[in-house]
Amino acid sequence: MAGSRIEPVRWENGAVVILDQTRLPQEEVYLRCERVGQVAEAIRSLRVRGAPLIGVTAAYGIALAAQCATDRSSVLEAAEMLRVTRPTARNLFWAIDRMVGRLAAGASTAEMIGEAVAIHEEDAETCRLISQHGRAVIPAGATVLTICNTGALATGGEGTALGVIIASYAAGNPITVLACETRPLLQGARLNMWELMKAGIPATLITDSMAGTCMQRGMVSVVIAGADRIARNGDTANKIGTYSLAVLAKHHGIPFYIAAPMSTVDLGITDGTHIPIEERDPEEVRGFRGHSFAPVCADVFNPAFDVTPAELITGIVTERGVSQAPYDRAWGM
Amino acid sequence: MAGSRIEPVRWENGAVVILDQTRLPQEEVYLRCERVGQVAEAIRSLRVRGAPLIGVTAAYGIALAAQCATDRSSVLEAAEMLRVTRPTARNLFWAIDRMVGRLAAGASTAEMIGEAVAIHEEDAETCRLISQHGRAVIPAGATVLTICNTGALATGGEGTALGVIIASYAAGNPITVLACETRPLLQGARLNMWELMKAGIPATLITDSMAGTCMQRGMVSVVIAGADRIARNGDTANKIGTYSLAVLAKHHGIPFYIAAPMSTVDLGITDGTHIPIEERDPEEVRGFRGHSFAPVCADVFNPAFDVTPAELITGIVTERGVSQAPYDRAWGM
Repeated sequence: MAGSRIEPVRWENGAVVILDQTRLPQEEVYLRCERVGQVAEAIRSLRVRGAPLIGVTAAYGIALAAQCATDRSSVLEAAEMLRVTRPTARNLFWAIDRMVGRLAAGASTAEMIGEAVAIHEEDAETCRLISQHGRAVIPAGATVLTICNTGALATGGEGTALGVIIASYAAGNPITVLACETRPLLQGARLNMWELMKAGIPATLITDSMAGTCMQRGMVSVVIAGADRIARNGDTANKIGTYSLAVLAKHHGIPFYIAAPMSTVDLGITDGTHIPIEERDPEEVRGFRGHSFAPVCADVFNPAFDVTPAELITGIVTERGVSQAPYDRAWGM
Repeated sequence: MAGSRIEPVRWENGAVVILDQTRLPQEEVYLRCERVGQVAEAIRSLRVRGAPLIGVTAAYGIALAAQCATDRSSVLEAAEMLRVTRPTARNLFWAIDRMVGRLAAGASTAEMIGEAVAIHEEDAETCRLISQHGRAVIPAGATVLTICNTGALATGGEGTALGVIIASYAAGNPITVLACETRPLLQGARLNMWELMKAGIPATLITDSMAGTCMQRGMVSVVIAGADRIARNGDTANKIGTYSLAVLAKHHGIPFYIAAPMSTVDLGITDGTHIPIEERDPEEVRGFRGHSFAPVCADVFNPAFDVTPAELITGIVTERGVSQAPYDRAWGM
């Protein structure tokens, strides 16, 4: 399916069809979810992931619930089930609140489905705008270092940070990419490299621990990453390891950008200390896909995200453009 | 074998017996090498690893060659075969030079074997001294962050950085340890955690990308790492990821120490720019133990070491004590 459009989530004949990303790139398996519980499981297990895409998928999950429901309270229960799947990505709560708002306003089942589709389509348009604005921060011929997966597999459109990279290349900028593998779940090695290779962009895979030596050797022009939640002051939670990249970038005088939709911005919190950081199963660190390498029962600390303070961020790219601190005006406050 | 002494390499009845570290901690398999070619393969494949232990093992390899040899030139050929197994660890060349010096001085086979045993025993005594001196740099009740494996599995004795940690704990300092897993070959997850758990020291495994957030959260008191080669000015090559830890430690005002024997110091080079950095098989990054996660043929950059400049190093612990820059006096120059 090289070159074909990547569709990680879609609404199809009254069901949500989800590409199981835990099995990529070795296997391309689609799950047909007809009940909201299956959608919640898919989010919890990272079969579908990426903050914007989690929002889109949760919206479809509520649409599914509305379709099956005999009364409004069961749809609200479904919303609560989805709300506790993952704690960090702002887009999840943003999308659920929007769907629940429509329900409260008396939307019909058809209107609920339409709202989820609208959230999906708006995210695609948002990605397009982020990509276009973000091109300005990628120097000509740059080597761009990035982390995790932030492309079509992580969003309802062409991506955030990876969307910027792909749009830059498509616009004729002869960039190359350094992709951090992103332990423990290896979204960089599995998903970002898969998308980069599909797009035909020269990309080199490194372990997360190699980013420092790459910067020291002068191999990195700019760093760009996605976001799971952005506080009002610009502090940004993103995939574990992003904070280390920001510190390393500062040490080497390399610009460090975040790319994310406005639905990732949480105006309700003043700074990053208020962002809940998910801690996940120790088995994710003890091994990978059931192959253990650490001793059995080894104690593990497994935070899925870290928080990069605004002062380490050169700028944040949203659908509104590229903004620098202080961000209040960028957020329209 | 919990609690028993770890013996990664030993001379036994005219053969070199090597614990195959690539299979640890899941399997404990010993290889009996009767020819130097088997020893060279074991070093090249990281069945035996750790800079000091590579030196010890190469010395035994030359002793094996001397035992089988009919003339001196075949022993010199064996030495050359061992010399090209791995490029970075100084101890390899130091031990080979010492063995070849004895050969040139007319040593008998028995004397060659005795010299290899002496190198092994001296390394054990050196480790003991490093551990004793190093205890001074570990604060009371510290959380110590470390990388790779630097214990009994990496040396001819009780270890370098991990030796310091174990000696501190044994001396009654209630420390805890954060062990970086150390991608790509996971010596931290597999080997350091195994040794720490055997020693009964509270230790928590993290991915390399989590070191930054641990420091940011105030969870790290001190960082200590081993070394593969130290230049005259103190610039230190060590396992990939060490440089990132040093930059992160500096950013957070956390002391950063190196522990290594004098046999790791290369007085022939002025600074770290002259240290050859080994690049290894891309498959090490594309997966682990034959399980691939990256796309087939993904481009990879796989340097096995990085260089931490002396200005990021708080001090270097050797058998002579704890030294600060400038190091010339510490090296006895």
